[in-house]
Amino acid sequence: MHVVVNAAMSADGKLSSRRREQITISGPEDFARVDRLRARSDAVVVGVGTVLADDPHLTLDDPELREQRLEAGKSEHPARVVVDSNARTPTDARIVDDAAATYLLVSESARFDRRAELARPSVEFVTAGEGRVDLLRAFASLQERGIEEVMVEGGGELIFSLVESGLVDELSVFVGPQLVGGRDAPTLADGDGFVENFPELTLEDVERMDDGVLLRWTLAE
Amino acid sequence: MHVVVNAAMSADGKLSSRRREQITISGPEDFARVDRLRARSDAVVVGVGTVLADDPHLTLDDPELREQRLEAGKSEHPARVVVDSNARTPTDARIVDDAAATYLLVSESARFDRRAELARPSVEFVTAGEGRVDLLRAFASLQERGIEEVMVEGGGELIFSLVESGLVDELSVFVGPQLVGGRDAPTLADGDGFVENFPELTLEDVERMDDGVLLRWTLAE
Ligand SMILES: NC(=O)c1ccc[n+]([C@@H]2O[C@H](COP(=O)([O-])OP(=O)(O)OC[C@H]3O[C@@H](n4cnc5c(N)ncnc54)[C@H](OP(=O)(O)O)[C@@H]3O)[C@@H](O)[C@H]2O)c1
Ligand SMILES: NC(=O)c1ccc[n+]([C@@H]2O[C@H](COP(=O)([O-])OP(=O)(O)OC[C@H]3O[C@@H](n4cnc5c(N)ncnc54)[C@H](OP(=O)(O)O)[C@@H]3O)[C@@H](O)[C@H]2O)c1
Repeated sequence: MHVVVNAAMSADGKLSSRRREQITISGPEDFARVDRLRARSDAVVVGVGTVLADDPHLTLDDPELREQRLEAGKSEHPARVVVDSNARTPTDARIVDDAAATYLLVSESARFDRRAELARPSVEFVTAGEGRVDLLRAFASLQERGIEEVMVEGGGELIFSLVESGLVDELSVFVGPQLVGGRDAPTLADGDGFVENFPELTLEDVERMDDGVLLRWTLAE
Repeated sequence: MHVVVNAAMSADGKLSSRRREQITISGPEDFARVDRLRARSDAVVVGVGTVLADDPHLTLDDPELREQRLEAGKSEHPARVVVDSNARTPTDARIVDDAAATYLLVSESARFDRRAELARPSVEFVTAGEGRVDLLRAFASLQERGIEEVMVEGGGELIFSLVESGLVDELSVFVGPQLVGGRDAPTLADGDGFVENFPELTLEDVERMDDGVLLRWTLAE
């Protein structure tokens, strides 16, 4: 399995403001790049925090990219994945519509009634972990279902946990031309944070794009 | 007056870990660049949070740079400035030693005994603001004392306030090859944060340096 994290952050490392409302950080060139990256992936993953804040659809925008997938014998869109211990994804969330298949990664503590409300033909539950989703086990289950190329689109809580679990191979970060500020605003990697043995990155590529810069890092094994 | 903020952040926008201990983010090439930037400045500014966390000296490392300043009829080192409403700078802090002149920017609420303890020939107090330091007034006082080229070396609370006050002209950020994580770790711009009308930046320059990248931004008027 190959896991790429992709996110857009402000020049000061924020994914959004302290109000956790989605803000526009990049531009058309980066949006097109993200769409192409999605098209190459078997699944696109977000945390339930992002579903609650942004209600993303995570499907492909560009009809040509959808066409190419179909021609290659793939589904029109990559699968969508929500990391959602307690099945808090709203029943009317765009990510559980029938435009594409969706995996809800839940833990043992997800209540049966929430699972029942979210049950539908396009949705499959994967249960791993007791309180929180056990990411290593959940991702192994995805791999058993044929998912090899994984793209993670945030947010910062999920990204930190994935890095901590050693699951991330690559990190693409668009750094945008604005300051957001805020000691409580979400950042690219939140969670408890590391205090020593900070995971090391290798800078693979630097590319000016829109009015910012795209940094492509890989993580040491 | 021309104000440049210079800082090193991890790939996820952190100035240090949640323990607020100084961490090595950049490398020798960036250190030398920072020394040269200091040498060109009339004053180097930090918040008292940085003094308490890192005990920085803020003098010039390179003897040649000191020599050049002396030859140009300047002081050997730029002045040092601490933004410190209540004069909390420790009496044994390196920044108030006699290696260079130091301005302590305090507010009306700084207690007289603290001021007395910190009084020494190399230290000058500038009082502006009631509870917190009024940065606009304090920086105007520095300008009256002939300080035109100002370099700010952090931390994130001070940087946010300076941006909010419209005092910052330029932002140089070294983005380093490590992940720090942590929802409570200090970031490049903390404070309350903006929720709309995010200050816009223009990307002037991108340069690979050490194992990361230096981004140079200017702020719109
Ligand atoms: N700029 C961008 O590229 C971008 C991208 C995405 C998001 N965002 C922004 O980021 C913010 C949301 O990010 P977020 O950090 O709050 O949420 P998030 O990372 O999307 O989701 C975090 C949630 O996932 C669940 N989770 C389950 N198992 C987990 C595990 N092992 N580790 C970590 N999380 C686990 C937890 O909720 P449970 O305990 O309930 O399961 C946790 O609160 C929003 O403001 C959004 O706008 C920006
Ligand atoms: N990587 C880097 O380049 C770098 C550089 C510097 C610092 N750091 C790290 O950053 C951390 C310290 O940053 P910090 O954000 O906690 O502290 P800071 O920005 O250095 O100092 C903040 C303090 O300045 C005082 N202040 C007075 N007037 C102010 C005003 N108008 N606006 C804002 N602050 C004002 C406040 O204390 P009072 O209310 O008591 O006055 C405030 O708590 C440390 O962990 C340090 O290692 C890293």
